[in-house]
Order: sequence, then structure tokens, then C-alpha cells
Amino acid sequence: MQLRNLTRRLPVRPMHLLLVFVPISLVAQAVHQETAVFVTSALAIVPLAALLGEATEQLAIRLGPQRGGLLNATLGNLTELIVGFFLIAAGDVAILKATLIGSIVGNLLLVLGLSFAAGGLRHKSMTFNPRTASIHASSLLLAVAGLVVPAMLVFGQTVGSDAREAVSIFVAIVLMSLYLAALAYTNITHAHLFHAPSRGETAAWSSRFAVGVLAAAALLVGLEAELLVDSLHAAISALHIPTVFVGLILIPVIGNAAEHASAIFFALKNKLDITVEIAIGSSTQVAMFVAPLLVFVSLVIAHPIDFVFTGFEIGIVALATLIVTVTSQDGETNWLEGAQLLGAYIIIAVTAFFIAA
Amino acid sequence: MQLRNLTRRLPVRPMHLLLVFVPISLVAQAVHQETAVFVTSALAIVPLAALLGEATEQLAIRLGPQRGGLLNATLGNLTELIVGFFLIAAGDVAILKATLIGSIVGNLLLVLGLSFAAGGLRHKSMTFNPRTASIHASSLLLAVAGLVVPAMLVFGQTVGSDAREAVSIFVAIVLMSLYLAALAYTNITHAHLFHAPSRGETAAWSSRFAVGVLAAAALLVGLEAELLVDSLHAAISALHIPTVFVGLILIPVIGNAAEHASAIFFALKNKLDITVEIAIGSSTQVAMFVAPLLVFVSLVIAHPIDFVFTGFEIGIVALATLIVTVTSQDGETNWLEGAQLLGAYIIIAVTAFFIAA
Amino acid sequence: MQLRNLTRRLPVRPMHLLLVFVPISLVAQAVHQETAVFVTSALAIVPLAALLGEATEQLAIRLGPQRGGLLNATLGNLTELIVGFFLIAAGDVAILKATLIGSIVGNLLLVLGLSFAAGGLRHKSMTFNPRTASIHASSLLLAVAGLVVPAMLVFGQTVGSDAREAVSIFVAIVLMSLYLAALAYTNITHAHLFHAPSRGETAAWSSRFAVGVLAAAALLVGLEAELLVDSLHAAISALHIPTVFVGLILIPVIGNAAEHASAIFFALKNKLDITVEIAIGSSTQVAMFVAPLLVFVSLVIAHPIDFVFTGFEIGIVALATLIVTVTSQDGETNWLEGAQLLGAYIIIAVTAFFIAA
Repeated sequence: MQLRNLTRRLPVRPMHLLLVFVPISLVAQAVHQETAVFVTSALAIVPLAALLGEATEQLAIRLGPQRGGLLNATLGNLTELIVGFFLIAAGDVAILKATLIGSIVGNLLLVLGLSFAAGGLRHKSMTFNPRTASIHASSLLLAVAGLVVPAMLVFGQTVGSDAREAVSIFVAIVLMSLYLAALAYTNITHAHLFHAPSRGETAAWSSRFAVGVLAAAALLVGLEAELLVDSLHAAISALHIPTVFVGLILIPVIGNAAEHASAIFFALKNKLDITVEIAIGSSTQVAMFVAPLLVFVSLVIAHPIDFVFTGFEIGIVALATLIVTVTSQDGETNWLEGAQLLGAYIIIAVTAFFIAA
Repeated sequence: MQLRNLTRRLPVRPMHLLLVFVPISLVAQAVHQETAVFVTSALAIVPLAALLGEATEQLAIRLGPQRGGLLNATLGNLTELIVGFFLIAAGDVAILKATLIGSIVGNLLLVLGLSFAAGGLRHKSMTFNPRTASIHASSLLLAVAGLVVPAMLVFGQTVGSDAREAVSIFVAIVLMSLYLAALAYTNITHAHLFHAPSRGETAAWSSRFAVGVLAAAALLVGLEAELLVDSLHAAISALHIPTVFVGLILIPVIGNAAEHASAIFFALKNKLDITVEIAIGSSTQVAMFVAPLLVFVSLVIAHPIDFVFTGFEIGIVALATLIVTVTSQDGETNWLEGAQLLGAYIIIAVTAFFIAA
Repeated sequence: MQLRNLTRRLPVRPMHLLLVFVPISLVAQAVHQETAVFVTSALAIVPLAALLGEATEQLAIRLGPQRGGLLNATLGNLTELIVGFFLIAAGDVAILKATLIGSIVGNLLLVLGLSFAAGGLRHKSMTFNPRTASIHASSLLLAVAGLVVPAMLVFGQTVGSDAREAVSIFVAIVLMSLYLAALAYTNITHAHLFHAPSRGETAAWSSRFAVGVLAAAALLVGLEAELLVDSLHAAISALHIPTVFVGLILIPVIGNAAEHASAIFFALKNKLDITVEIAIGSSTQVAMFVAPLLVFVSLVIAHPIDFVFTGFEIGIVALATLIVTVTSQDGETNWLEGAQLLGAYIIIAVTAFFIAA
């Protein structure tokens, strides 16, 4: 009965079949097959992140626009937060920073690229509200600016870790404050401008069920994230994958797979406003909420992480931001722009794979 | 009688009370209290710069739009020029270059940020002419480009000081020529497009009085600038302030305080066009007129200064330019954009303070 | 008779008089005057490139819009391709990479700058279709992004030449694919949007004559390019010109002189759409077609060239792209913008000349 309810409520989507990797990863762990643990825990996170997203979405609908918006603004990138937590606990700060950059760049180039390309093959011309896109883009530009400024001062000189940590905490406070300010702007002082684009959804789940799925999925994501982080280094050596590639490309793709699917889904329906909101909004959230929150978390459980990114990380995040800013300014897109965004992402991924080896 | 006239003419504004630091700084100098000299001369420059600005403004009104515009284009950043002169004379080239960058970045992020935030708290929606803003922004982009190109070639290689000097002189000539070209454009060939936004001012001062105040204030700024530069290094060690912070943040804030006040004043009155013109116009003037003129001055009194900025200086000036270009393109703003610009400025200041220590 | 026909068909333009340097360069080569060979072969390439362009143009008109567009998309930068071929054969990879960047930057800043300035002195206000310019600009941004990403990962670390070569081949494949995609977009799926701006030309040459001129000019360009490349290093030492300057400035100016002339010609006639198309379109073609094709060629005849540009090359190509993106967004221009673009180019040239010595 419970199970029947569940299957009725949860539309069995292809992605959910990947849930089979949750038990498989535990078995792999039990028999100490590190590489298998790495691969299966990564695959298990994909459907769990999707479930997290669905539960958050359902709860948000129940809570109404204001409190629902707040919930999305807090839990929208919960998977990234959980994975980040375990990376901090394991002391893998360089990989953590790479996943933050990779998540921003992936949302901007891979998600938008796939969406524009897929949507553009079906619809000759696609439009979205350039005004909303422009607000998102300028927020993003400022978030990225905040994130990369500390790194710039470091080039060509050695800086004490005390100074790095002090700056990181300050920057985290500023970014988090601006994130709260943006919430106040969109939900309080200028709420009339932001009648959130309706996704045509009604709450299919009860609040209790949604909370239950949310809690269970979060727990399982935590479990799988720990498996993933623990098996990371063994698997990297065994598979000969560069660490930079895992941080910049692999982990963000796993964590964002569900968002990718949603963004493409709405692009195929020619609802580009939602696609743009998912992709750019998620990037902004990573820069202004997830990254600062992880700094605060790191303060409590270990040394604070610093915001000193590598030159390559700064370069690609600046490029991705610039490209999306320019591309989204006219409120129009087509399959060629999608292909070009994808091309830029592929070049970044190939470069990260080969050169950093 | 004279004094009564003066108080009638000069509205006693809070800023003018700071004039009391002119004699105090002289006393501090007489008793060799270097740190006190530094602090009080800095405070004394604030109202003197304001008086310089007022006198220039009054004279400009008397001279009419054409010659008045020329006066503003020449003396609009006189305080920066005077402080720069003494920095060259003292051989503090690194600090001088930092003040030039700090003045551009401060005008773009701090002045516009405070103005948009303050104005936006009073007015729900604020608009300005995106066309004028766009002309200013593309001028600024080119000015900044000119300023940073020489630095880029230097990264990763040592370059003889002869070559640096030769390039700096050439770049100064090109930037100054483009500045004169822009004056010809706005005042001669395309003057019809630029009926300067009226600031609703009539000349309250006689020409003679304005010239007198201008000369007196310039003299006193020169005196205080010399005190400031002479006490700089002693105060920096005593107060444990990083040199980079003094150049990038402190000195530009002192020199631009009066402009800050004006820009915010007009933003509160929802006259954003004037605010944007003050902030972006002043930045362009520093890049294309003050910096080149200081190169020519340095040729006469010392080795020519070079235009080889640090990676951090290039990064923040590029970021600030980009942010303002993107932000000003839609001709609309609000308190959130103001807060974001301010946030970017705070992150830059905190980074300069901690990491460069 | 043949000759009479030729002079009737070929309007004797001042540029054609430079053809006299073809035999002169051969004489100089015969008497082993390296410097004279360098100068005269450079001068000989100017009219030959013009003839190549004319023949391609004439053939394109005969072939009709679709196949003609394809011809232009393939042979539009044939001179750059031929010179690049001989640079690869001679192993001058650093100079080759500089010529690619110099060709992009020169088209964006020098060609557009001269055209806007010249056109703007004759016409008070000049407009072009911002939509077309925006499509070109975003293509360019992505092309440049693809070109510079590999270089960014290299900063501050040594990377094996195997990895560089693998990345370069991948990037070349991606860029070439996107170039073909853009051709499919403009000629097949969205051809209705791109009724190419008519240049008011009718085919003055027969197809056979055009093919003949094309073949003869290509052969002679090949001959002169070989002379140029062979005499390069001797001439550089004799004339004390920095190698960077030759690659970034001299060779691209020679190869693009004919395009410069056309772009200015149409600007003087206030047909800015064609000017913008020549300049930005040619830059995009160098980044997405010429550079990848040269990678494939280098694979066959030597080690593959890599796409790891210097910091200066990346900086100036990013700057030029940004400036043109911002400048072209409003679809308006004037002599001041032209002068500013020119100023940026002069600063780059002067910097390349002095600092890199």
C-alpha cells in the first residue's frame, strides 16, 4: 500500500531507475572496491538530487510564493551543500573550490547550451524576457566579481593563510548579505515586478510526504556523498582522471543532472524564461549562498576554506559570465547559440582533462 | 564684513567644519607627530577639495557652457592632480598608480553604489538616459584599455625601464589626444547631442571671488598634500595600514569625498543623469587626463612614471568597468544594484587591507 | 590583346601598382639582400591579397548567394592561410600564433577604427543593424573564448607538449564544427534572416577569368609568402624590429590591407552594415576556420601547433572583443568611436614595439 502510494505519487522516470545504485554502492563499499564505490555513489547521487529537487518544489508550492521562494532560495542547491560539507571534512579544499566554479560554469554553459540547442531544434525562434535575464546576469556578474577579487591580489605573491582566511570570512559575509538583500528586493520591496513565472504545477504531494522524501533523500545524499569523497583519491589514481577534471566537471554534472533535465524540459516547451531562471539563478545561488555558507561551516568544523581560486578557475567563470551576459541581452536565442555555449563547455572540459593531467 | 560676506556666500555645510583640520595639521607638523599629521592632513583635504569643486563649478557657470565645460574638463580632478604631483616628487610611484586606479574604481563602485542605494531607498524606481551612460561607458572602456595594455605585456618577463618609460609617454600622448578628441566631439562637432543636464544652479559667487577661492583652496590642498605625502610612510608603519590600502582606498576616498556628496545629493533628488555623469565622467577624466598629465609632469621633475599596473589593479579596474557597463545599459536602477556595487567595493577594500599587509 | 583585356577588366587601382614589387622581390632574392627581400615581398603581398579577394568576390557572384557564401567562408582569408602554411613549415609557431591574434585584433580595432573615423568625418551620424552586429559579436566572443581557454590552464605551470597538442586538436575540431554549424544556420535553417547585404556588385569577370586570377594570385602569394618567411629572421635582426611586433602588427596589416580598403570604402558610402560584416566576420573566420585548419595542416607537415597563447595575446584579443561588443550594441557610431578604436590599436602596437624588444 505504502509502495503503491509511492509509485502513484512519484512518476517513475528513467532517472529514478538510477536509485538502484544506492544499494550497489553500499555493497561495493562493503567489499572495499574503491573505484566501484566512486562510480556507483556518483550515479546514485543523480536520482537522489532529483528527488531532493522534487520534494523542495512540492513543499514550495504548498508554502505559497513567498515562503516557497525562500525555501527554494535556501535548499535549491542542497546537494552541492552536502557534497561540499564532506569535502571540507575530508580537507579536499582545492576540489571543493573547483566544484563551486564548475557548478557555476556548468549551469551557464552546459545547462543553457543543451537547453537552447534542444529547444532550438524544435522551435525556430525562442524568446525570453530580457529584463529578467538582465537582472539575473548583473547579479551574477557581481557575485562572480566578489568571488574572484581575493584571488587577484594573490597572483605573483605569497600570502599568509591567516590573511586568506580573514578575507574569505569577510567576503562570505558580504556575499551572504547581498543574497539576503536580493531576497528582500524580489520578495518585499519590489515583489510586484517578480510574479514568478508559473511552472504550471500544482502540489501533487502532501506536505508531510514532501518533508519525508526531502529528509530521506537528504540523508541518502549525505551517505553517498561521504562514499564519493572517501573513494575519490583512490579512484582518481586508478582511473587516471585529473583531479581538476573531477572537481570542475564530474561532480557538478552529477549534482546538477536533475536541474539540467528540468531546464531542457522547459526549453523544449519553449518556456525559456524558466530555463534561464533555473540556470542563471542556480549559478547566482552557488556564488552567493552555497559558497559563503560553506565558509561558515568550514569555520566550525575545520580551518576556514579560502576564496583564492586558480587563474584557470577565474578565467572560465569570467568567460562563462560574460558569454551569458552578452547572449541573454537580446532576449532571443536559437540552436546555434546553444551549440556555441556547448562548444565553449566542451573546450573547457577537454582542457581540464588533458592539460591538468 | 569680509567674513560676513564669506559666510553668506559659502553655505556653512557640515563638510566645511573639517577646515579646522588645516591649522591642526600644521600644529601637528610643528611638533613632529607624523601619525597625527597624516590623519589631520587627510581630513583637511576633504573640505578643501569640496571648496575647489565649488569654486570650479561657480566659475564654470560664469564662463558659460562651452568654456565652463572646458574648465570642468581640466580642473575637475585638481585635487588628484596636486596629490599626484607630490607623490611623484617624493618618488612614491607605486602609491601614485594605486591612487589613479583607486580613484576610477571608487567613482564607479563606491560613488555609484552609495548613490543608487541612497536614491533607491527613497525612490522605488530610478531611470537615467541609457544613451548618455553608454557613451560614457564606452569611453571609459577604451580609456581603461589604454591604461592596462602596457601592463599586460610585462607579465612573466622583465622589461627594461627605458622601454616602460617610452611606452608610458606614447600611451599618455594617445590618451590625452583622445581626451581632447572627446572634448571636440561633445563641444564642437556633436554639441547638439549634449545639452548638459542642468544642475539647476545659478552663479552665486562673483568671478573674482570664485577665482580667489579656487587659488586659495588649491594652495592649501598643495600644502596639505605635501604634509600627507611626507608623513605617509611613518604613519603607515605606526598604524599598520598596508601601503596598497592607502593608495587604492584611503587617498581616493579623501580626494573624492566632495564628488561623492554631490552624486548622492542628486541621486536623492532622483536626478540620476547627473549622478552617472559625475561618477563615470570623473573616472574617464582620471584615466585620460589626470594620468597622462602626471606622466608629462613626471618627465619634467623626475623619471617618467610608467603605466605598468599590478595584476590586482588591472583586475579590479576591469571588473568595475564591466559591472558599470552592464549595469548602466538598461537605464534603470534600484537600491539592490546600489548595494551590489557597494558590496563589490567593500570586497575590494577588505582584500586590499588584509592580503597585501 | 590579352593585356588590353586584363587592363579593361582590372580597374587599375593605386594598390595594383604595388605588383611591381613581385619582380623586385625576386631580384632581391637573387642577389641575397635579405632585408630587401623582406620589405619587397611584404609590399608584393598587399596587391596580390587584393587580387585574391577580388577574384573570390567575382566568383562568388557567379556562384550565387549560397555557394558564393560558402566560397567566401572558405577562401575569405586565403592569404592568412598561405602565410600560415609557410610559417608552420619554417617552424615559426610563435610568430604564426601572433599573426592569428594580430589578424583578429587588427580587423576589430584598426579596420573598424579607420572605417568609423573616415566615415564619421563625412557623415554626422552612421547607423547599422545592431541585430546582425550582435550575432557576429556573440559568435566572435565564443570563438575567442575557445581560442584562449587552453592558454589559461597553462599559466603558472609547465604542461607537457603532448597534452598541449591533444588539446589543440580537440579545440580545432570543436571550433571548426561550430564554424560549419554557423554556416548551416545562416545558409540553411535560418537563411531567411540573412539576405546578405547587397554590395551592389555584378560579376564583371567571367568565371574562367576569375578562376585564373585566383589561381595565379594564390601561386604568387605562396611564392612571396615563402620569401617573406625565409627572410624574416635576418631582416628582424637587421632592422631591429621585435619579433612580436612583426607577428602581431606587420604581417596582419599586410595580409588585410585589401580588406581594410574595402571596409573604409563602404564606410565612406555610409554602408556600415557591410563594413561591420567585413571586419567582425573576418575576425570570426580567422578564429574558427583559419586557426583550426592550420592545426590540421600542421599535423600533416610537422608537429601540431598548439593554442597556448601568451598573456598579452589573450589580453588584447579579449579587450578588442569586449570593446567591439560594447561599441556595436547600439547600432550607432561616429568619428569619436573610430578614433578611440584606433587609439586602442596604436597603444597595442606601440607596446608590442617597445616592451617586447
